Amino acid sequence: MVSPASGTRAVARCDELGIAPYSDLPDALYRAFLTPAHAAALNKMAEWMREAGMAVRLDGAANLIGRYEAEVPGAPALLVASHIDSVRNAGRYDGPLGIMLGVECAARLQAEGRRLPFALEVIAFGDEEGSRFPESMLCSRAIAGVLKEGATAVKDAAGMSVAEALNTFGEHVQVPMPATGPASAKYQPKDVIGYLEAHIEQGPVLESEGLAVGVVSGIAAQLRYSIYVSGEAGHAGTAAMHLRKDALTGAAEMALAVERIAHEGGADLVATVGQMDVRPGSVNVVPGNVRFSLDVRSGSETIRNAAAARILEAIAAIASARGLGLTSQQTQDLPASPCDPSLTSLLEVAMEQAGYLKRTLVSGAGHDAMVVSALCPTAMLFIRCEKGISHNPAEAVKTEDAEAALAVMMNFLKLLESRYNG
Amino acid sequence: MVSPASGTRAVARCDELGIAPYSDLPDALYRAFLTPAHAAALNKMAEWMREAGMAVRLDGAANLIGRYEAEVPGAPALLVASHIDSVRNAGRYDGPLGIMLGVECAARLQAEGRRLPFALEVIAFGDEEGSRFPESMLCSRAIAGVLKEGATAVKDAAGMSVAEALNTFGEHVQVPMPATGPASAKYQPKDVIGYLEAHIEQGPVLESEGLAVGVVSGIAAQLRYSIYVSGEAGHAGTAAMHLRKDALTGAAEMALAVERIAHEGGADLVATVGQMDVRPGSVNVVPGNVRFSLDVRSGSETIRNAAAARILEAIAAIASARGLGLTSQQTQDLPASPCDPSLTSLLEVAMEQAGYLKRTLVSGAGHDAMVVSALCPTAMLFIRCEKGISHNPAEAVKTEDAEAALAVMMNFLKLLESRYNG
Repeated sequence: MVSPASGTRAVARCDELGIAPYSDLPDALYRAFLTPAHAAALNKMAEWMREAGMAVRLDGAANLIGRYEAEVPGAPALLVASHIDSVRNAGRYDGPLGIMLGVECAARLQAEGRRLPFALEVIAFGDEEGSRFPESMLCSRAIAGVLKEGATAVKDAAGMSVAEALNTFGEHVQVPMPATGPASAKYQPKDVIGYLEAHIEQGPVLESEGLAVGVVSGIAAQLRYSIYVSGEAGHAGTAAMHLRKDALTGAAEMALAVERIAHEGGADLVATVGQMDVRPGSVNVVPGNVRFSLDVRSGSETIRNAAAARILEAIAAIASARGLGLTSQQTQDLPASPCDPSLTSLLEVAMEQAGYLKRTLVSGAGHDAMVVSALCPTAMLFIRCEKGISHNPAEAVKTEDAEAALAVMMNFLKLLESRYNG
Repeated sequence: MVSPASGTRAVARCDELGIAPYSDLPDALYRAFLTPAHAAALNKMAEWMREAGMAVRLDGAANLIGRYEAEVPGAPALLVASHIDSVRNAGRYDGPLGIMLGVECAARLQAEGRRLPFALEVIAFGDEEGSRFPESMLCSRAIAGVLKEGATAVKDAAGMSVAEALNTFGEHVQVPMPATGPASAKYQPKDVIGYLEAHIEQGPVLESEGLAVGVVSGIAAQLRYSIYVSGEAGHAGTAAMHLRKDALTGAAEMALAVERIAHEGGADLVATVGQMDVRPGSVNVVPGNVRFSLDVRSGSETIRNAAAARILEAIAAIASARGLGLTSQQTQDLPASPCDPSLTSLLEVAMEQAGYLKRTLVSGAGHDAMVVSALCPTAMLFIRCEKGISHNPAEAVKTEDAEAALAVMMNFLKLLESRYNG
């Protein structure tokens, strides 16, 4: 059987899933966990998986899994996965493209009549975004065996729990679904040799460097703070400049210090002031109070922590020099989640063999790979997207970049095969 | 008749008017134009004016006027005035203290058995703050003959117009009120020799210099702008620092330029960023858009305009260097309103004669004196207030500072008398 397996087809299939019935909204893409649009997308995916020679099943967490069998049936599998759900008013490639490329890998192998010493299991995770229920990555947590306590008790805006939604979801999907619940979806480590996820970058780095693809070294460690600056509110007309304790100009100097320190740090260090609330917030009043958010990330916790410490020190010095009050509160501390060094270097070689410049970057955003690292070694491939835009209908991927990703993934399978045999 | 006329009594009388029935609220001071609290305050004021030997009348704009007759009855008058209305949750001295000090001047003259070659007319303006109707200074506009078109048609939050409120206000005041409307309140220039207003500074300058009182050279000229900065929103984790177009750090640099340029300008130049709205305003998103307000004031329009031009130029350079979009919109342009140089220098001499250091400052806030300058020469005396706090129940004035103000005002009357005679 001749297969038209290609990155171009992977992109086209994402486009095909970009509208109703694969969206829960008539005029925008919104595919939430366990909705009719999710079911419709899985039914279509199952069809494509079968065409690519895969056996298809649904697990207790509503993950759709297509297995392209190994040379020896029942051999452990390489998981190639990403998520099928989306945010509200989403782009078409964030998640689905990685699944589609997994299907294309199987289709290529089928077209070549090849089997590998390990199976290929392509997984469409049902929930990564957490856009329906107030928890995210429930489905990759299920397969990795790291479900949170009470994960199926959380409810959507209409008051329906994950457990309730799972109970009836199977009725809408043309693949039998076990009623054994998400916990039953856990893989045994002996059945898995690794995990590969291809995903759009959702950032501008690859595009700015003219690169189609890049290897992810890990998910960044993240610290978040709320910073409170207090000065003295005053009349904008009567408070002389030299007598002011302006909380806003103080906060402005602090925001510039955040920017400067992040610039001076390592290439993967980023720091952001995303919120700034000014009180009282009147045209004719010198601001007396400002609260701003601070988000610091790096692939290295050491770099992140050092930068956060420098920032807090700089902020304190600014407050002191200006006679302003200052309190800061840490609101989040997520550790770094490095990808597996061995699989990652294999992916780098695969990329070079395909003729692409080796480029390794940290993912500032979270991904299912971060969760699956609790189960097995993980590797991640980033694909350039236009202007780094994501979570937006303007999300765009070039078909040649999807071809590049597919070429790298096929090389990766071959390298893994050699290593497995050798 | 022996009079206890004093600045201390003026302060005590402000305190007396700080609660119901002189406030429209049971637990805070709010005395709005043409309310029962306004009427109650005028009834009490009329009593105090009569005790000080004044003939009391109400004009068509609900201004209460006490006249301490001149040596020759019917001679033109020096107006000594301020406003009896307040903002919501007000302090007790913003406005009333100037009226009370006018009454004390008359009480002193009466105690000394003196009359001047001109009459003293103490006026309690009914509306300066504009806290009930969406127009301010209606009452001083009325006596100066510069009422705005349709000024009595504006309505309060309950839908009652100024004209309707004026129609029934007379019923609550124990002084006859003509039904001839605000326009009838206009003074003829021949009947007025000048205007003196004492007012708390509402700023921190006098306190910071250890001065009880200061002479106001004029009301600052004011320019206001809305500044719109546009960059590119991006993921706080995936947007590398060197690829960002962060609208907030751009706006922060602009706010610091505003502060720096105002610092470098003349002593009475002030510039303020009082509002800053950040979009999308999420912890994990690099801000794409910021709007901020800019308020620039100086006693000199030339200095103000030069500073505004420098600020707009600096802002444009920052936007350009950062690759940010920029638009600015002028939202207000109020000209400077200098006090009369001759009356002002007389007030300075009066201050020196009373043993106080001569200090002249610009008022960054607007006052009735600004409006009355359309009718006659004006002079203004500022009184120190604690920490510059105003429009707040914490507003505080030392009794010795009120004594200082009264001494300066009495000297001013004497100097004006000499000049009038000579």
